[in-house]
Amino acid sequence: MNDYIAPLRDMRFVLRHLAPLAEVMALPGQADLHADVADAILEEANKFASEVLSPLNVVGDREGAHWLDGQVHTATGWRQAYTQFSEGGWNALSCPSAHGGQGLPRLLSALVEEMWNGANLSFALCGMLTRGAIEALELCGSPQQKAIYLPKMISGEWTGTMNLTEPQAGSDLAAVRARALPQPDGSYRVFGQKIFITYGDHDLTDNIVHLVLARMPGAPEGVKGISLFVVPKFLVNADGSLGARNEVRCVSIEHKLGIHGSPTAVLSFGDEQGATGWLVGEAHHGLAYMFIMMNAARFSVGIEGIGLCERAYQRALAYARDRVQGTEAGASSRDKVAIIRHPDVRRMLLQMKSRTEALRAVACVVALAMDEAQSHPDEACRLQRQAFVELMIPVVKGWSTETAVQVTSLGVQVHGGMGFIEETGAAQHWRDARITPIYEGTTGIQAADLIGRKVARDEGATVRRVIDDMRGVVQALNEGDDPELSAIASSLAQGVAALDVAVQYIVDQYSKDVREALAGAVPFLALFGIVAGGWQMARAALAARQALDRDQCTNGEAAADLPFMQSKLHTARFYADHVMPEVSGLLHGVTRGAQAVLALSDELF
Amino acid sequence: MNDYIAPLRDMRFVLRHLAPLAEVMALPGQADLHADVADAILEEANKFASEVLSPLNVVGDREGAHWLDGQVHTATGWRQAYTQFSEGGWNALSCPSAHGGQGLPRLLSALVEEMWNGANLSFALCGMLTRGAIEALELCGSPQQKAIYLPKMISGEWTGTMNLTEPQAGSDLAAVRARALPQPDGSYRVFGQKIFITYGDHDLTDNIVHLVLARMPGAPEGVKGISLFVVPKFLVNADGSLGARNEVRCVSIEHKLGIHGSPTAVLSFGDEQGATGWLVGEAHHGLAYMFIMMNAARFSVGIEGIGLCERAYQRALAYARDRVQGTEAGASSRDKVAIIRHPDVRRMLLQMKSRTEALRAVACVVALAMDEAQSHPDEACRLQRQAFVELMIPVVKGWSTETAVQVTSLGVQVHGGMGFIEETGAAQHWRDARITPIYEGTTGIQAADLIGRKVARDEGATVRRVIDDMRGVVQALNEGDDPELSAIASSLAQGVAALDVAVQYIVDQYSKDVREALAGAVPFLALFGIVAGGWQMARAALAARQALDRDQCTNGEAAADLPFMQSKLHTARFYADHVMPEVSGLLHGVTRGAQAVLALSDELF
Repeated sequence: MNDYIAPLRDMRFVLRHLAPLAEVMALPGQADLHADVADAILEEANKFASEVLSPLNVVGDREGAHWLDGQVHTATGWRQAYTQFSEGGWNALSCPSAHGGQGLPRLLSALVEEMWNGANLSFALCGMLTRGAIEALELCGSPQQKAIYLPKMISGEWTGTMNLTEPQAGSDLAAVRARALPQPDGSYRVFGQKIFITYGDHDLTDNIVHLVLARMPGAPEGVKGISLFVVPKFLVNADGSLGARNEVRCVSIEHKLGIHGSPTAVLSFGDEQGATGWLVGEAHHGLAYMFIMMNAARFSVGIEGIGLCERAYQRALAYARDRVQGTEAGASSRDKVAIIRHPDVRRMLLQMKSRTEALRAVACVVALAMDEAQSHPDEACRLQRQAFVELMIPVVKGWSTETAVQVTSLGVQVHGGMGFIEETGAAQHWRDARITPIYEGTTGIQAADLIGRKVARDEGATVRRVIDDMRGVVQALNEGDDPELSAIASSLAQGVAALDVAVQYIVDQYSKDVREALAGAVPFLALFGIVAGGWQMARAALAARQALDRDQCTNGEAAADLPFMQSKLHTARFYADHVMPEVSGLLHGVTRGAQAVLALSDELF
Repeated sequence: MNDYIAPLRDMRFVLRHLAPLAEVMALPGQADLHADVADAILEEANKFASEVLSPLNVVGDREGAHWLDGQVHTATGWRQAYTQFSEGGWNALSCPSAHGGQGLPRLLSALVEEMWNGANLSFALCGMLTRGAIEALELCGSPQQKAIYLPKMISGEWTGTMNLTEPQAGSDLAAVRARALPQPDGSYRVFGQKIFITYGDHDLTDNIVHLVLARMPGAPEGVKGISLFVVPKFLVNADGSLGARNEVRCVSIEHKLGIHGSPTAVLSFGDEQGATGWLVGEAHHGLAYMFIMMNAARFSVGIEGIGLCERAYQRALAYARDRVQGTEAGASSRDKVAIIRHPDVRRMLLQMKSRTEALRAVACVVALAMDEAQSHPDEACRLQRQAFVELMIPVVKGWSTETAVQVTSLGVQVHGGMGFIEETGAAQHWRDARITPIYEGTTGIQAADLIGRKVARDEGATVRRVIDDMRGVVQALNEGDDPELSAIASSLAQGVAALDVAVQYIVDQYSKDVREALAGAVPFLALFGIVAGGWQMARAALAARQALDRDQCTNGEAAADLPFMQSKLHTARFYADHVMPEVSGLLHGVTRGAQAVLALSDELF
């Protein structure tokens, strides 16, 4: 089972009931977006993901990318697939339409992104980084820079990179040392070494546009002295043709645990005269610009987690249906059965399924809010949606990726001994997943961002609006006297109560003793993620119940969907009974655990 | 940081306070065991583990074992190390003294095993499997078989394997198809293919003794028709010298996610005339004999988890002390600090440390019970201890290995981006750990064994005795009005109460609807493990508190240990605040989650 098929049924459910595409279609500037167009995009993306990208996933894992004499070569078939990808217009899908993009709403592009990631994470990373670089140039570049770079980056003819990390400066960008010396012609000479640069070199395109953080002479210390530069691999002539090779060199690529198909480069800028670069935006504002890119990238990494979960689930489910082993417990027949009949295998599959659906629903709700934050006619609504987006980005990033490690691990476990054999394929998803809670800011960094900038800074105002929405869902679940919905309501109510207490603790403690708040930051993020997932699964259960009831009354046209609705209801119930109860332990860690984290002196570890 | 150092301080603490070596020394037949001898063994084992085995760990991972023309070659240096290992008498350490072993009590050999596993799991596996085969021959072999095989296997001159799994028969041994045809001379011709055979072929020794499950003609269907055969790679002449090559062939070895240094073989028995084998014990009793070996092996796999946790912790701690990154939250100084100063890194390290210490303590308490079950003068005590051992083996196996996956994952996370780079070494532990919840029975199999044979069968009698012991510890903690101990008591009390409820549910449900009980089996095992760990960490806290108090009164001689005692107290408190609270979520999954697991029909997944 090596094929990836996009979960179109669940995606359509989300677009109909949880993050309604209709709301995006009603936004200004979306007159051209029709439901059938959106659906056709999803269908076509699924085809490309399953037919072109998915078969290359294992090729990338086995062959990896190779460094030879300063040049990186991608795995067999990758260049071809990339050309198809660009020529099909897929790279341009979510890019700004001013420079040749198709300006697809975030809600739809998030689902398409999930497909690329599910089919082939290592491949998808190239476009993900390029889109980040496009966004930075679009927002901060000069008209000339936009004209030179954007059309070719949007078409996919050139790719982009983000150059932040240096050996001494991982999460701590204040420690960046790369230098940029101004030249009389307005350009800069850039010097320094950058590490962990995804697709920092490759053979997919003729040029690569590096965005690089560096310091100018006399710049302030710390993060306030960092500027952003654009440094292309090949200089670009006035007519747009490629000129001289710039002084940026790929020194090596890393030997990694996963995402073998995606080259992670060490780049050396300016070994002799300096690499030629140009300032992007204003001097010393580099960090703020990078943060714009990083927020987008963090959300995208969250989507990576969802794609991996879905892929791992599909593979485990196919194996569990196929593998015959043992007899059914409690059954009179001694016939051998497929392992999906074993209760513990079902439990594992439902853990995978329910968490994956919860992640997807939350990410889509946030994506819809991104679209509204950008173009809702009402400014107050835009601001409120933007606050919600900023609150949720570290949750989507941290929770989706940590969950991806868990879910892909269960995917290995469902396979038993076969899961440990690389040829089976389940292990690759687990290895690939392991980078996602690390890059673009570790879970610890996400959690610190969440409790500091997103919760404590506005004293919990934004998160409390979310909590109110959640309580509304509890109420709606309790309205119909349906025992299934009531059980889900009671579970969600407990989760929401825990979140409420945790928020109060964080708000109080952050100003009193920030270290105590930070000691519980990751458990807080995990708790928030689980409750947010439960909130959306509860909304899903409500929608499913209504669809089922409608059908009983009218024998309606959605009959084909009814088994899916039944499945959704059960999956939401599983989440309520097996996932949501984790919050009580997490709450304890948040509100009572700080002392134990901080008390031990360093030398006693 | 590539070195492994055995955690001797904690091991000594356990041997003094939690699983007292003195109790083993008081057993009949242990007159020769002195405390200083025991300590010298631990010191010497640490030397061998850290100096010889630990440096080869990464070599085994990178080179792997190689199959060439039917012969497996181990990685550079492994054969030499193996010879040193055998010649040093390490293989014989825990083997029966009747045939040349040193008959070390299980309590001590468990700690030595932890060292081998922590230093180099792939290497340790060879001896572990050999000891299992020794045990089976010791218990069930004929005097002649014992004479031929045991001395050379105990000395390490020959190794042993366990051949259970076939492609269609993984966890389900009833499906075994290998055949054994009786010959006039009393031998058998064995035919069949076995997979996943650890060290099924290698170049470490001149001979390999395979123990093989197969069916005789006319044997009953299912597990009651399986017999055990000994099938050496080379036949053994009457004078003990090696004779003809037997018809067992290594067809290939697996390409695995981890434990690359340990060859996992596909063995083909009897491609032409049949491999020559001899029946071990009685016909059709093979499964029972294998279970004896498997119980020992399951406990050993639990120890593997502990060794991996310790190794991952040591590596992460060294990195966290060394890596300077960012400033300290809430501090006025803007100086960069080692990342161990960041609260979330401390939290991760304490998760690793507290769980590892809890696992070790529980495993040692079980090992002590094994020694008592074997040679306590009082039969009632022996039986009670044996029941305790049998109850705890699936817990030690399942919980230690699942925890190892978690703890080694945290070890990767502490390293940030460096953790994903293979050269760092953290990733290897995580990859290696992933097999441990799978082989020798997956966690699902352990959990089914636990709730069925170990809890439901005696209607909870054995587990309730353990619960009583736990309650005694709660009481002891509450006696002194110490706020730290009271906090730990309250956490333990909640855990014990949850375990009690869960046991009642399992006992009731197992007879009523076994599928409902099985749906919660793994959460039950996880709950049991966490509570058992908390029980032992609470005992550790009591002992540490007493040591600290004693010192305040007497300024006693244990002054050097006091910082360690302080650390133990804090670590137990962390466990109480961050690990134990997980039980409430697990309990919900056990007692309320079955419906959600079973309700969804197969096709709706």
